This record gives sequence, structure tokens and C-alpha cells, in this order.
Amino acid sequence: MDSEALRSYLEETFRTKIPITQAMGIRVLHYDGTNLVLGAPLEPNVNDKGTAFGGSLFSLLVLAGWGLIHLKLKEEEIPGDIMIHESSISYSLPVTDHWEAHCRLPEAAEYTHFLEMLHSKGRARLALEAQIMSGPQVAVSFRGSYAVVGKQF
Amino acid sequence: MDSEALRSYLEETFRTKIPITQAMGIRVLHYDGTNLVLGAPLEPNVNDKGTAFGGSLFSLLVLAGWGLIHLKLKEEEIPGDIMIHESSISYSLPVTDHWEAHCRLPEAAEYTHFLEMLHSKGRARLALEAQIMSGPQVAVSFRGSYAVVGKQF
Repeated sequence: MDSEALRSYLEETFRTKIPITQAMGIRVLHYDGTNLVLGAPLEPNVNDKGTAFGGSLFSLLVLAGWGLIHLKLKEEEIPGDIMIHESSISYSLPVTDHWEAHCRLPEAAEYTHFLEMLHSKGRARLALEAQIMSGPQVAVSFRGSYAVVGKQF
Repeated sequence: MDSEALRSYLEETFRTKIPITQAMGIRVLHYDGTNLVLGAPLEPNVNDKGTAFGGSLFSLLVLAGWGLIHLKLKEEEIPGDIMIHESSISYSLPVTDHWEAHCRLPEAAEYTHFLEMLHSKGRARLALEAQIMSGPQVAVSFRGSYAVVGKQF
């Protein structure tokens, strides 16, 4: 699969496997093998202040990390379950209008170590950072530790 | 308002002001002035593993803290905006079936200090902990720092 096919595949995965993403209007906007960008509209995720609900912002960010690992495992042809283990989030600015969550793979050494652990032990953890920007400023900053358990080890 | 009226008022607030809570099926199950319990069904919040989606679990927990402060401010007759500022979450066990988020006010001294700051400065922060249990064990543990800005200071 090329990047566009993977982008479309991930959107379908969200739609069918995590149905609340439909109510939230989550879209997969971009994937290039290293960066994943998800988007969501304000309207279904609005809060009492007319800005984006903190729980919806968290959901988009945690899915950006989950989706990036999911696509990398698909590329590597490693079937596995990906679970968020722990995470922290910091809200610096209110988010309005349509918004995007950006997640990027860590440095090559860290990612290679993750794959080696997954191959040798059948399980591994990967920490990812993701952000929602407001113009040039970080509006919401997320860090998540994901546990991956291989299915065929 | 008595506790039952406040419980019902909060459920209506979620339904009208944070509409994604309707898609998630969030209910306000219990309020007694110190403890708030929210519930949600698995089905609309299911993930690819057939357990509760981590983003939905976070949403229920962050709303348990937000809702508890919202009801306390209503009781104290202090109009104010409540915003999640930062939080951390730890997922220890998968969550299945219907689940509940429990949030309790901190010790009296801490809560009194929060009210004093809000009265004197017009703004204050309150840290709250909330949990989702699986039988006797904590399945998901949440800590959130909420910023409150009074509207009439």
C-alpha cells in the first residue's frame, strides 16, 4: 500500500473499529510514513465555552499516536494490538474552528529499538508526542506511552 | 436545589452544552455534595479490541472533575468558567461493559483554600483525582488540574 492507501485504510479502521470517531467527525488528513495528521470539526466537539471539549482534543491526540503505530505495524507486516498505557496532556490555548493533531515518529534509534523488542520479546512500548497547533503556537501538547503486543510470536 | 436536582441539572448541562456526551451516552449517576459518579455504556465507546476506547475513558474522567467543580460553584452561587489545564491518566486494566467514573472533593482545607483564592483573586486552580474501577481494582486512574475563572469579580 502507498501512503494514500494507508491514509484511507486508517480512516476506515477508525470508522468501523472505534465508532465514536464518526460522531466526532475525525478524519485522517495526511500520512507520509513518518508524520500522521488527524483533523476534526469544532461543532460536534464543542463545549460550554464554544471551544473544543478537552476530552475530544485528548481523543484526537491519543488516536494520532495509536494510528501512527498502527500504520507502521501494517507497513512492517507485524500484526499486533496497540494499547495506550499512560499519558499526559497540557492545554495552553483554547482551540476553535477545525483543528488538527500532528504526531511524528521518534528518532530512528528509538523506533528501531522498539521494533527489535517487539520481534525478540513479542511486546514493546513506544512513547510518542503529539500536538495541536493554533497558528505558530502549541495549543495542546500530548505525550503517550503505548504498549504493543504482537499477535504471532 | 437538592442533590437530586443538581444531578439532573448536570446531566442536562452535559447534554446541551457538550453535545458529544450524548453520542457517548454519558449519564450522571450520583451526586451527594462530595462525590460525583458518571456512567457510560460500552457500545458507542468500543474500540478495536472490544473494550472501552481510551479517549472515551479520559472524557468521562475529565468530565467527572469538571462536573464536580461545576456543581460546587452552583451550590456556592459563584458563576465561573472551568477549564482543564493539565492532566495525566494511567490505564491499568481494560474496561468492559458499562463503566463508572468516580470523583471526590479533596480535603476540606484544600477546597476552602480554592474558594478563598477564587473570592480574592477571581481565579483559582483545583487538582482532582478520579478513577474507573473494575471490581475492587483501579482500572483507570486520572489526575486533572482545573483552572476556574470567576465571571463576576
